[in-house]
Amino acid sequence: MKSLKPDQKLVELCVNTIKLLAIEGVQKANSGHPGMPMGMADVAFVLWSQFLKFNPQVPTWLNRDRFVLSAGHGSMLLYSMLALTGYDLTLDDLKNFRQWESKTPGHPEFKCAPGVETTTGPLGQGFATGVGMAIAEKMMQARFNTPEHAIFDHKIFAIVSDGDLMEGVAAEAASLAGHLDLGNLIYIYDDNHITIEGNTALSFSENVDQRFQAYGWHTTTINGHDHPAIAAALKESIAETNRPSLIIARTHIAHGSPNFQDKAASHGAALGQAEIELIKQKMNWPVTESFHVPAEVTQFFNSVKDERLTDYQTWQEHFRAWSQNHPNLAKLLAEMQNKTLPEDLEPALMGVIDESAQATRAQSGKVIQKIAELLPGFCGGSADLAPSNNTLIKNARSISKADFSGRNLHFGIREHAMGAVLNGLALYDGCLLPYGGTFLVFSDYMRAAIRLAALMEQQVVYVFTHDSIFLGEDGPTHQSVEHYAALQLIPNLTVIRPADGAETAAAWIYALKNQTGPTALILSRQKLPPIHHPNHFDVGKVAHGGFILADSDKPDLILVASGSEVHLAMAAKNILEKEGHKIRVVSMPSLKLFKQQTQAYQQSVIPTTNCQVVAIEAGVTDLWPSVIGADNLVIGVDRFGASAPAGVLAEKFGFTAQHIANRVLEWLK
Amino acid sequence: MKSLKPDQKLVELCVNTIKLLAIEGVQKANSGHPGMPMGMADVAFVLWSQFLKFNPQVPTWLNRDRFVLSAGHGSMLLYSMLALTGYDLTLDDLKNFRQWESKTPGHPEFKCAPGVETTTGPLGQGFATGVGMAIAEKMMQARFNTPEHAIFDHKIFAIVSDGDLMEGVAAEAASLAGHLDLGNLIYIYDDNHITIEGNTALSFSENVDQRFQAYGWHTTTINGHDHPAIAAALKESIAETNRPSLIIARTHIAHGSPNFQDKAASHGAALGQAEIELIKQKMNWPVTESFHVPAEVTQFFNSVKDERLTDYQTWQEHFRAWSQNHPNLAKLLAEMQNKTLPEDLEPALMGVIDESAQATRAQSGKVIQKIAELLPGFCGGSADLAPSNNTLIKNARSISKADFSGRNLHFGIREHAMGAVLNGLALYDGCLLPYGGTFLVFSDYMRAAIRLAALMEQQVVYVFTHDSIFLGEDGPTHQSVEHYAALQLIPNLTVIRPADGAETAAAWIYALKNQTGPTALILSRQKLPPIHHPNHFDVGKVAHGGFILADSDKPDLILVASGSEVHLAMAAKNILEKEGHKIRVVSMPSLKLFKQQTQAYQQSVIPTTNCQVVAIEAGVTDLWPSVIGADNLVIGVDRFGASAPAGVLAEKFGFTAQHIANRVLEWLK
Repeated sequence: MKSLKPDQKLVELCVNTIKLLAIEGVQKANSGHPGMPMGMADVAFVLWSQFLKFNPQVPTWLNRDRFVLSAGHGSMLLYSMLALTGYDLTLDDLKNFRQWESKTPGHPEFKCAPGVETTTGPLGQGFATGVGMAIAEKMMQARFNTPEHAIFDHKIFAIVSDGDLMEGVAAEAASLAGHLDLGNLIYIYDDNHITIEGNTALSFSENVDQRFQAYGWHTTTINGHDHPAIAAALKESIAETNRPSLIIARTHIAHGSPNFQDKAASHGAALGQAEIELIKQKMNWPVTESFHVPAEVTQFFNSVKDERLTDYQTWQEHFRAWSQNHPNLAKLLAEMQNKTLPEDLEPALMGVIDESAQATRAQSGKVIQKIAELLPGFCGGSADLAPSNNTLIKNARSISKADFSGRNLHFGIREHAMGAVLNGLALYDGCLLPYGGTFLVFSDYMRAAIRLAALMEQQVVYVFTHDSIFLGEDGPTHQSVEHYAALQLIPNLTVIRPADGAETAAAWIYALKNQTGPTALILSRQKLPPIHHPNHFDVGKVAHGGFILADSDKPDLILVASGSEVHLAMAAKNILEKEGHKIRVVSMPSLKLFKQQTQAYQQSVIPTTNCQVVAIEAGVTDLWPSVIGADNLVIGVDRFGASAPAGVLAEKFGFTAQHIANRVLEWLK
Repeated sequence: MKSLKPDQKLVELCVNTIKLLAIEGVQKANSGHPGMPMGMADVAFVLWSQFLKFNPQVPTWLNRDRFVLSAGHGSMLLYSMLALTGYDLTLDDLKNFRQWESKTPGHPEFKCAPGVETTTGPLGQGFATGVGMAIAEKMMQARFNTPEHAIFDHKIFAIVSDGDLMEGVAAEAASLAGHLDLGNLIYIYDDNHITIEGNTALSFSENVDQRFQAYGWHTTTINGHDHPAIAAALKESIAETNRPSLIIARTHIAHGSPNFQDKAASHGAALGQAEIELIKQKMNWPVTESFHVPAEVTQFFNSVKDERLTDYQTWQEHFRAWSQNHPNLAKLLAEMQNKTLPEDLEPALMGVIDESAQATRAQSGKVIQKIAELLPGFCGGSADLAPSNNTLIKNARSISKADFSGRNLHFGIREHAMGAVLNGLALYDGCLLPYGGTFLVFSDYMRAAIRLAALMEQQVVYVFTHDSIFLGEDGPTHQSVEHYAALQLIPNLTVIRPADGAETAAAWIYALKNQTGPTALILSRQKLPPIHHPNHFDVGKVAHGGFILADSDKPDLILVASGSEVHLAMAAKNILEKEGHKIRVVSMPSLKLFKQQTQAYQQSVIPTTNCQVVAIEAGVTDLWPSVIGADNLVIGVDRFGASAPAGVLAEKFGFTAQHIANRVLEWLK
């Protein structure tokens, strides 16, 4: 690309086009963020015109540079660049900014438009997700690059804002990126000194440069409107392959706007037609035309696109040669991309379950070993709780700065960054199937990232162990009572709480098949015996969400439970039958999946007539009425837990079989 | 305290006593974290014996130094120190570590034992909460200290761990602390190189010293087992009043344990009786005795306590003189501590409501102005969304490093730190009544801190604006669909979603009266007209959670809704009545409060017989069946939102009066 040398006039024309498209998009929608695109148009122009490796015809080209707009509110900047550089995004799409089902929603949404690599907007997420992408590339490099052929040798670029740098999730991810020497990461910081409340000096006076150096990053500070300086910084950062790079670009928000430059008012609202006219006058632009792209600009970006095609073609040649020389690698890569599941997945995973009483977290640990054997893209780790979460793949190395060939990630005590990094790993064109573990209670720390996985329909698996109050002595700070329920409320997140080893394996099987969204596994710290299934245990049962575990002829009472409480229900059944009741026990590992079944199936498991129902769960009771109605009984824990041995808690909270039976009998009266 | 000079032998005896009490407590519980207390016993000894300002007889002394054990898993260190220094915590309490209703739960819990300043355990929270305490002290200094009398001149100390420093919430808070020049903050970093997964080198290699310097902190690095070095660092940090201090203490986890020192295995499990015996032998300790405190140690800590009493007495004299010289200040302080509410609170707040159609966020903004007039401890801010959350107190200055006399806090784009800082402000002996705002969707970022406010029963108010999908164009990343429900699941958090200005004022009144837990207000971005109340609107109605808004004679259908959907319900009533139905409309600003009412009241509002019920809420539907049963209809949004103007979304998601009416009629068929 260094061959294209637009003259100053053309450069200005291009930059002004970018600025105007962005602010006119916002103006037409009468909603959006004009300041940031104007402030970062210079940077974006230099990045796209001189450096970014892309092919708009093949937006999923494996070796494209990834561009993440972490400052997602500046979406019109990204959309304008995509439209100008030949992506399947037209001027009409720009005019449809923020309209129903347009390709150009308010914040960039993955899958809405080609070239949008991840959904951003909630600050810090793009920053941390990009770190995941960079780890993913390093992992792919370690697996697939050969001395002759660098199949993966691109960069991950991002534009990040003050807000991104203030967010804790970005701090966590920055520390991890420095730790792992992610030299493929290049972030440009839009240092415009303005946030919504005013000047950044109101709340933000740290030395960003020094902070990132402390993390082990390479840093440069430039004038973000000086094209040669931008180009030099990018060049230097691209050359720096041992450390992630932060380019601190001092910019002016709403750059070029007579009345809004350097003003917080330019951040989140349309500038107004009058101001846009003033801007156009200043630019010598045809004032009456909207969404105007001068012919020279179109021509220039076409030439950029064409020129950049040579990168793609060269890579294609490499890829062909590599495929021929390394057919096994090529096959492996295709398998990873296709997420092919082996035909014997179910028996293979069911086969590793321990028949003795084991915690479901331990059973999950066994399943993880087998999945790792079967699925080459399977990788993951824990936020420093691997020994407790049972998340370590025993036959694989740990990922480190020196070696990305392993599969075990050590996220450190950084749950939120873990969540976002998992998103970045999953977004790496589906090659990897990542999982991450922590205690269920700490799902709170990463909830914003989980939500994005669900929104982006990414296959990520969460291994949340130490569920309910029965982790015991650690006390209420570590005991989830509301988290299992709270996770179920996130759309497109499947939550499964298995009751024993078989259900745990089945839950993992579900998670591996669920390729359009994340799955959260809710696992016990304490040992749970295997459930006896008079008839063969069918893996599909868990996918139904709920199923009959033990029955009576014409039951008059149904006990429904999940996880460890299923065993209590089974024991309570024995007591209640001695009192003359006919009991059915239903295992309900996933309320959400159960509610997705046909009405007929639901009725066959929990008939709403002629039967009373008791749900038992050592957690908040709020969700059960949606399945069993408000007139039935839910035995739960609608308060915080307490620090004591699990057995004592069971007594005190009424979670022994006898307590349950007594409570049910009393209720039946 | 510098007068007490224990000889080396006595010092060793004291430190060994601390170590052994801690690890024997863990051993007796057969659960807990012995490594950290052993590693930090030296630091704790020096801090308590030479520096910490405390009075165990008056643990709530206003000018005590606050000590926060951010590394809450090392709770036995804190409990041992409290027991030895004369707090109402006995050796029997230590023996009851982690037992039911003991004063010594697994992690330090506020209110369980005197001297525990905040609940810790979830990493990073203590760190950030301490920052809140330091801001609180600075605010109190600005209000109450006079040239002659420094009523508030203590420090906030904390012990923080690797985990604390890795957590994003701590990073956010550290940046804020540096920004505000919190010279009253002194944190000691237990730099033991060990986390649960192994050496910190697995995931953590940043330059902590440099990072904190970048934040504007004063830093020192010492050998954490060298008493003179510890003392010198504390002295230097106490003298540094312009910047927060971080003392990086290189320590050895399980210091003094022959087989566990420097081992991850010492972190989270009892060392075993055999190892404890080895440790005792090495210390020349009576091997057969447990929880042994040598007489000299008791005597020494008694002398520490007595000596430290002079600080307290001196302060008392100052306080008396100050009270006499400044009766108005003394009265103000007492009022703030007592959280006295003015008698005319209700009419005063109801009186400021705008009678025109206004967003409830705007109405809340008006109420905030009036509360600020009435309650001197009322203070707060937003995570950089003050103009959107309407959280600014107009007649008050902003808090800045130069001036803490204001009441407006600028948290920056740091929701999680905001949550924890609010906790620290609230924990400042109840003098302050803090609130914090952000968009409802970003409550996810701060959920872990909200949970702690609820667990600690702290009065904090959250101003969560831009609820539901009706914020419009910003799209699904910014549209809460599950957050209103998800917040309701947190025990002891009251969540209120008012429908108009009057309900908003009533919600604030509830929040001000609710002094044993946090309250979250869920407010609209869009304008909502005032609801016409044929009979006078009674503030108490909102406190009942739900109430009849409009009725018919013998209604056959009840429409229940909250927030903006109440207006839809009212409009749908008109349509449905034309179809011959008799409709009651119920406003339900708080499901949780409604469920706390008597069965009779609930039945009077929503009878479960002879009536069909439809709940309408532009969010997930999961919680409604707990109030209206599973057989009734919930019209909700069980998916992510979308980017489009609010009016378009209302059409597309079926949230117009006509759509609602049609849906109801179809369902009734």
